Amino acid sequence: MPTFVQILDFIGTFAFAISGIRLASAKRFDWFGAYVVGLVTAIGGGTIRDILLGATPGWMTNPIYLICTGMALLWVIFFGKHLIHLHNTFFIFDSIGLALFTVVGVGMSISLGYPFWVAIIMGTLTGAAGGVIRDVLINEIPLIFRKEIYAMACVIGGVFYWMTSLMGLDVVVVQLISGASVFITRILAVKYHICLPILKGDTGEEA
Amino acid sequence: MPTFVQILDFIGTFAFAISGIRLASAKRFDWFGAYVVGLVTAIGGGTIRDILLGATPGWMTNPIYLICTGMALLWVIFFGKHLIHLHNTFFIFDSIGLALFTVVGVGMSISLGYPFWVAIIMGTLTGAAGGVIRDVLINEIPLIFRKEIYAMACVIGGVFYWMTSLMGLDVVVVQLISGASVFITRILAVKYHICLPILKGDTGEEA
Amino acid sequence: MPTFVQILDFIGTFAFAISGIRLASAKRFDWFGAYVVGLVTAIGGGTIRDILLGATPGWMTNPIYLICTGMALLWVIFFGKHLIHLHNTFFIFDSIGLALFTVVGVGMSISLGYPFWVAIIMGTLTGAAGGVIRDVLINEIPLIFRKEIYAMACVIGGVFYWMTSLMGLDVVVVQLISGASVFITRILAVKYHICLPILKGDTGEEA
Repeated sequence: MPTFVQILDFIGTFAFAISGIRLASAKRFDWFGAYVVGLVTAIGGGTIRDILLGATPGWMTNPIYLICTGMALLWVIFFGKHLIHLHNTFFIFDSIGLALFTVVGVGMSISLGYPFWVAIIMGTLTGAAGGVIRDVLINEIPLIFRKEIYAMACVIGGVFYWMTSLMGLDVVVVQLISGASVFITRILAVKYHICLPILKGDTGEEA
Repeated sequence: MPTFVQILDFIGTFAFAISGIRLASAKRFDWFGAYVVGLVTAIGGGTIRDILLGATPGWMTNPIYLICTGMALLWVIFFGKHLIHLHNTFFIFDSIGLALFTVVGVGMSISLGYPFWVAIIMGTLTGAAGGVIRDVLINEIPLIFRKEIYAMACVIGGVFYWMTSLMGLDVVVVQLISGASVFITRILAVKYHICLPILKGDTGEEA
Repeated sequence: MPTFVQILDFIGTFAFAISGIRLASAKRFDWFGAYVVGLVTAIGGGTIRDILLGATPGWMTNPIYLICTGMALLWVIFFGKHLIHLHNTFFIFDSIGLALFTVVGVGMSISLGYPFWVAIIMGTLTGAAGGVIRDVLINEIPLIFRKEIYAMACVIGGVFYWMTSLMGLDVVVVQLISGASVFITRILAVKYHICLPILKGDTGEEA
């Protein structure tokens, strides 16, 4: 029987993979290219985190992420035309993934003895770096650098993790509050189109 | 005296480097930029594999890859105009490199105790990831996600490696069959323009 | 009290971060995106070096790089319009960073027992790879592959490090000469518009 966390992990991986596969499809990638972009979106952030922390990436010990991405590809191949109607569902799934991946990244870093500011970065990488690699592979400027608050939700979740830990709360409560803060931040950001300010610096030539 | 495998390795590295240098030249890179793109094409896949497997990249212990890329750069500088006539030769060399790099990646992963599905991914990364980094650096959508079967040839070679190993064949025979399957798949794919299907999903806006 | 090297490190990090933040601003990134691009420009090269050498990246043990990038972001937010007048100052700061990062990268590799040709690559990666990641993230062809000599200054600094070490000079003298050679090469390259030759190969279609 899968645990509750495993179910959330599967949902999040599926949603991240779908997001990569859909963008690849818009660029007319073939099935292999779409699979790779979906996979990288789902596991890229965690892989960068694991390389930095010196851990073995999860997908090298458990094939579930490869299988889940394969199911996402089949889904898009067979039901792609109807995905647009499931827009809200996938947005919720994607936000679940963002929340879970952030909490996993922060928690893993803490348990390895890293300070909290490193853990917050690792949580943000776990949640948001896959989408950056996805956008690099499809040759677009990363969405998260310009659109509604996304990676900042991970940062906020990491700060909540830190503060509630300092308050001495139980680790399960800490993780629930942290994950909920990511999820709610992301939902509110999209619902009310909350963006960070655009940086208006000079536009002079770089040396 | 170099061994037969070392000669194949040199031929493959040279062909991969040439492919990077030619694309860099089409973008009007300078000599340094062309060298870097050639080098990354040749060693990028193996380097990603080694980082994931926790091994030291081969180019950090043996300067042959740097020297070989330098020779490829000199070749393009002096004989660049005539490269077009050697198109078929370089295609064969590139396919030799693809086959060898795949077999090396799969074999190394197996010998480190990884399961076969990880080994197949590592073989594919070794053969095809350098070309992806090359295309990212020249700011193009990676070719292998859209054109004739390329990375899928590595996957097929990895599956042959797996199946022939299960059959209990000698490791040299296993590697010959695996490499030949990559080589033949790639040759046939280009000769008959065999592509994977393009993914036709929705083209709706991503959340 | 910070040491002289720490002051140079701060100046270099600040200049590298400013370069990333300014280019992000020209692409209308939000504050978060600009911060990330600035951070990656400053620490990206060293991080790649540390991953290849199996060391822990400096920013995971000392928050000064994150703080310095935050100060660079505030600087651009508040004084962005006046940056154009400080063009020469930032060019000097950037060259200081390039020189220091190169020397740090070479010295670290030597102290870990790597041969000099690996150390030269690591010095060049430390100095120049952050700018390459920056350009990939803003979806531009990396500047250093086409404009005035930049990464080649790191290579020259690495060669000076090697040669002066072979001459048996004291390590402090070696590092001063190496750093000065990077700095002077870069200043002269920009002042006299010294570029490497553009590679004119064939522009035929890639197989």
